[in-house]
Amino acid sequence: MTERLRQQLDFLVEVDKMKTVLRQTLLIDKSRQENDAEHSWHLALMCMLLHEYAADREDVDLYRVLKMALVHDLIEVYAGDTPAYDEAGNATKEAREQEAADRLFGLLPVDQGTELRALWEEFDAMETPDSRYAAAIDRLQPFLNNIHTDGHSWVTFKATRAMVYKRMDMVRHGAPELWPFVEEAIADGIKKGYIRE
Amino acid sequence: MTERLRQQLDFLVEVDKMKTVLRQTLLIDKSRQENDAEHSWHLALMCMLLHEYAADREDVDLYRVLKMALVHDLIEVYAGDTPAYDEAGNATKEAREQEAADRLFGLLPVDQGTELRALWEEFDAMETPDSRYAAAIDRLQPFLNNIHTDGHSWVTFKATRAMVYKRMDMVRHGAPELWPFVEEAIADGIKKGYIRE
Repeated sequence: MTERLRQQLDFLVEVDKMKTVLRQTLLIDKSRQENDAEHSWHLALMCMLLHEYAADREDVDLYRVLKMALVHDLIEVYAGDTPAYDEAGNATKEAREQEAADRLFGLLPVDQGTELRALWEEFDAMETPDSRYAAAIDRLQPFLNNIHTDGHSWVTFKATRAMVYKRMDMVRHGAPELWPFVEEAIADGIKKGYIRE
Repeated sequence: MTERLRQQLDFLVEVDKMKTVLRQTLLIDKSRQENDAEHSWHLALMCMLLHEYAADREDVDLYRVLKMALVHDLIEVYAGDTPAYDEAGNATKEAREQEAADRLFGLLPVDQGTELRALWEEFDAMETPDSRYAAAIDRLQPFLNNIHTDGHSWVTFKATRAMVYKRMDMVRHGAPELWPFVEEAIADGIKKGYIRE
């Protein structure tokens, strides 16, 4: 086996841990919390099927978006998941994630480590059409599960209307045609008492 | 909400069930069985990182391969997983899966249902460079987890050398440069008593 293939396989074994990084989101059958591997798959499939609603649609390269979706949470195998509404966790998030990225992407051959890190950094910065669309759908995936699990994350974090609007704002920028659906679902969540006024 | 968006969101809610379709494969930490959503994500990431080993590399369109990886097991939300070494299950597999495909892809707008079904059928037929490569990596992903979990699936199904060679044969066609790694790991599995002579 070449050193290059050994590094690739070691990395692919290491990221199996994505299947044990738990998120706040519940599965729609409410049986348990979702993990990062499941979330990344669901996100990628959603990006594929909702592409027609992307802002700057003609500038959004779905191929790059799919790669971004597959790798956007990889660093959580070391940094852990930081729930959207966890303020203390979000204060230390960047430092923890940069350290995790050094360690994780360093396992790969340099060219591939550099490509994956660049995709992750682009996703996180949300400054390109591809990453704005991917980030919008990354907000929408747990939102969809929340709607179908009696607002589980909203209730857990005592979310207010302002918190949810702030969290979901990227949908307005990355997939504006989906925004009316989001606003309607937030109004419904308030009506049902899952989100505080 | 348009009827089209409603169909798309209903489908994306329905396929959340992929997270509860269990496979024979264990997670590498041996804590539990892997599910279809996790497998699909791991497969897509492996396709991304091992692309350089694809047969007919210049004819393999990684973008199409990634889409195929994301959808190749979707019909299992209704048809269930059929373990590779389960002969009785494999005898009824095709009929069960065609019925599941009618039901599942029928939830989507016609253009998208047609696209996803075509990707699934292409994957299953293993006749194009894209699908041969995707199918080769689809064999390699559980193989990698098997190696790291004391040959769990091989032991469970009392697999023989001939059974494992037959199952893994697609690697020779879809990603031949990875075949020496496969042969070496099978020899090691036999030495350790996980695979019968």
